[in-house]
Amino acid sequence: MKKISILGSTGSIGTQTLDIVAHDSERYKVVGLSAGKNTDLLIEQAKRFRPALVSMASKADVEAVRPHLPPGTRVVHGEEGLIEVAAGTDADVVVTAIMGSRGLPATLAAINAGKTIGLANKETLVTAGHIVMERARQRGVAILPIDSEHSAIFQCLNGEDRKSIKQITLTASGGSFRDRTRDQLAGVTVDEALNHPNWSMGAKITIDSATMVNKGLEVIEARWLFDVTYDQIEVIIHPESIIHSYVEFTDHSVIAQLGLPDMRVPIQYALSYPERNATPTQRLNLAQIGKLHFREMDFARYPCLRLAFECGRLGQSAPAVFNAANEVAVARFLKGEITFLDIERILETVIDRHEVTDINDLQTIEEVDAWARKLAESV
Amino acid sequence: MKKISILGSTGSIGTQTLDIVAHDSERYKVVGLSAGKNTDLLIEQAKRFRPALVSMASKADVEAVRPHLPPGTRVVHGEEGLIEVAAGTDADVVVTAIMGSRGLPATLAAINAGKTIGLANKETLVTAGHIVMERARQRGVAILPIDSEHSAIFQCLNGEDRKSIKQITLTASGGSFRDRTRDQLAGVTVDEALNHPNWSMGAKITIDSATMVNKGLEVIEARWLFDVTYDQIEVIIHPESIIHSYVEFTDHSVIAQLGLPDMRVPIQYALSYPERNATPTQRLNLAQIGKLHFREMDFARYPCLRLAFECGRLGQSAPAVFNAANEVAVARFLKGEITFLDIERILETVIDRHEVTDINDLQTIEEVDAWARKLAESV
Repeated sequence: MKKISILGSTGSIGTQTLDIVAHDSERYKVVGLSAGKNTDLLIEQAKRFRPALVSMASKADVEAVRPHLPPGTRVVHGEEGLIEVAAGTDADVVVTAIMGSRGLPATLAAINAGKTIGLANKETLVTAGHIVMERARQRGVAILPIDSEHSAIFQCLNGEDRKSIKQITLTASGGSFRDRTRDQLAGVTVDEALNHPNWSMGAKITIDSATMVNKGLEVIEARWLFDVTYDQIEVIIHPESIIHSYVEFTDHSVIAQLGLPDMRVPIQYALSYPERNATPTQRLNLAQIGKLHFREMDFARYPCLRLAFECGRLGQSAPAVFNAANEVAVARFLKGEITFLDIERILETVIDRHEVTDINDLQTIEEVDAWARKLAESV
Repeated sequence: MKKISILGSTGSIGTQTLDIVAHDSERYKVVGLSAGKNTDLLIEQAKRFRPALVSMASKADVEAVRPHLPPGTRVVHGEEGLIEVAAGTDADVVVTAIMGSRGLPATLAAINAGKTIGLANKETLVTAGHIVMERARQRGVAILPIDSEHSAIFQCLNGEDRKSIKQITLTASGGSFRDRTRDQLAGVTVDEALNHPNWSMGAKITIDSATMVNKGLEVIEARWLFDVTYDQIEVIIHPESIIHSYVEFTDHSVIAQLGLPDMRVPIQYALSYPERNATPTQRLNLAQIGKLHFREMDFARYPCLRLAFECGRLGQSAPAVFNAANEVAVARFLKGEITFLDIERILETVIDRHEVTDINDLQTIEEVDAWARKLAESV
């Protein structure tokens, strides 16, 4: 039986992870859950899955949930509590489904504790890919991607020599505005932006999908996860999101991973790896789908993706700045402070003014992150 | 350096195998070649690749080629000669690119001699799958498929536990008549039938592609190669032949192998396995292709495929009868003796009259084969 801790159990990936656990309760046991402010759902989850440890955002949240938890459940809170759920339980696998930069120290703590990582926190590799992958290597810890694209690539590389990789192609649905020209993006509303054609996800990632920032973050993650160069990573528009990504090898043979868009397949894969187990998902029927479409990525239409490649190539502090500026810009867009196209303007401005510095520790990342956020709030 | 013998070096797969060898002469060395009656090409191949041993169909062919061979080349002939090229050299890999039932004893001889088999002879597994796979297991010999579909499945299974296979799907282009109704098949000519949309292949296999017999033989081969049941094998129409086949696993994750239609990729894979090496082939560009289409297999439109599944399920002598009757029917069609739709009529008639018998040795296969051929000539 695999023991699992989930950082961010009340979010989209967290709840779907628990769905997998519920579907196969003889195989998986939840030992730790961390949530933010969604006390009702956390209480429900704790009652159902009986983790020994739960962590909430604040002391006030702890007081709100404590009376409703099963007897014996330990409750902690804050950054320290998060790290305890990540590293202080007897979990075999830690699913890092938490959003934002808080995911990084918690993930590193889990790696230090020798946990297998089910990685769903994008910031971990985007802001500190070189530190995290090196630490995982030293500790002999597996980083198993929970993301349809990276899980696809990871599956395509099963049994293959990574030196045989010629190119990795990430597929992109094109997001909620894929059929609009740049001119038609000028007046789009928040509601329109939140309407993703294929995937049901959180607000931030749905906006990132529309700006193609999400794909940019995935490109940077792929560089670290699979130890390839940026020249070896390509993005293609594939509106149906059926081919989740693919790998071309040196012999020009291409291996792809396909499926209906359902995050529970990559989640289950990270939990069961190297085995495969049944998932409570629908089967893919290509005849029923009938057609799959592909078209070249248009970097003029999606300048944020071009910026992501640039920041990735610059390396060191640049991806962290890209990520921090984007978090602020998206938050401002969701609040109605700025327009959709302002997101890319803010990104360009912040990156333009940034002087790349070496990143050797988390503190420098925090400083760079803070600098970028401050600027992104004001431009 | 890998040493290679090729059975059927002057055919389509044989010449493409030599193309791969020529492209990577530091990695591969040809030690044996067998041909039929194409003396000119065999002489050219022997001069270029300098095999120690060559075999021709008849003694007359031997006399025709001998004066033109490089000094020291040994020349043999007939069934015995073929078996010597298969089993009597120091080859590491034997590519069985020979057509027809003569491939079976030669392949078994190569297995007995401990050679890795690059399997391109369909009859081997169709007529004697249980015997061949058992022998390969006993001798610890790898059977590496050279066929775009089976190589695709084999590649998709890299690093996977075969117990996790839920379903194998072979893709079928639909052949030269895929856009015709059954009524429109009545008056088709040999030339029309030989015009395959995607693959340039020999005459027999091109006709088999139009009748879907080829896919039927592949279904039977897949059953043996991957140790699955017929219920686990599906065929889907995919006109572009870009996805060469795919595997669905128990978690509903699908792994597919893709590429431009070029047999040199699966040939090279069988030669280089488990490594991958560069091939002199074009890269796949999905954006340039733009669309991939899929539709359900129509067993009423392609009754020969239904018959193949039936014969596969019947097992024992039934697939050998299916194959022998088809060889005769296609030959008769190519000679203009019968119409295109007569091919399936002959198959149905012969199978209908056949009483399935156990097959435990090659002699029984030969008897069943002879019975089916005789009947197929006369109905």
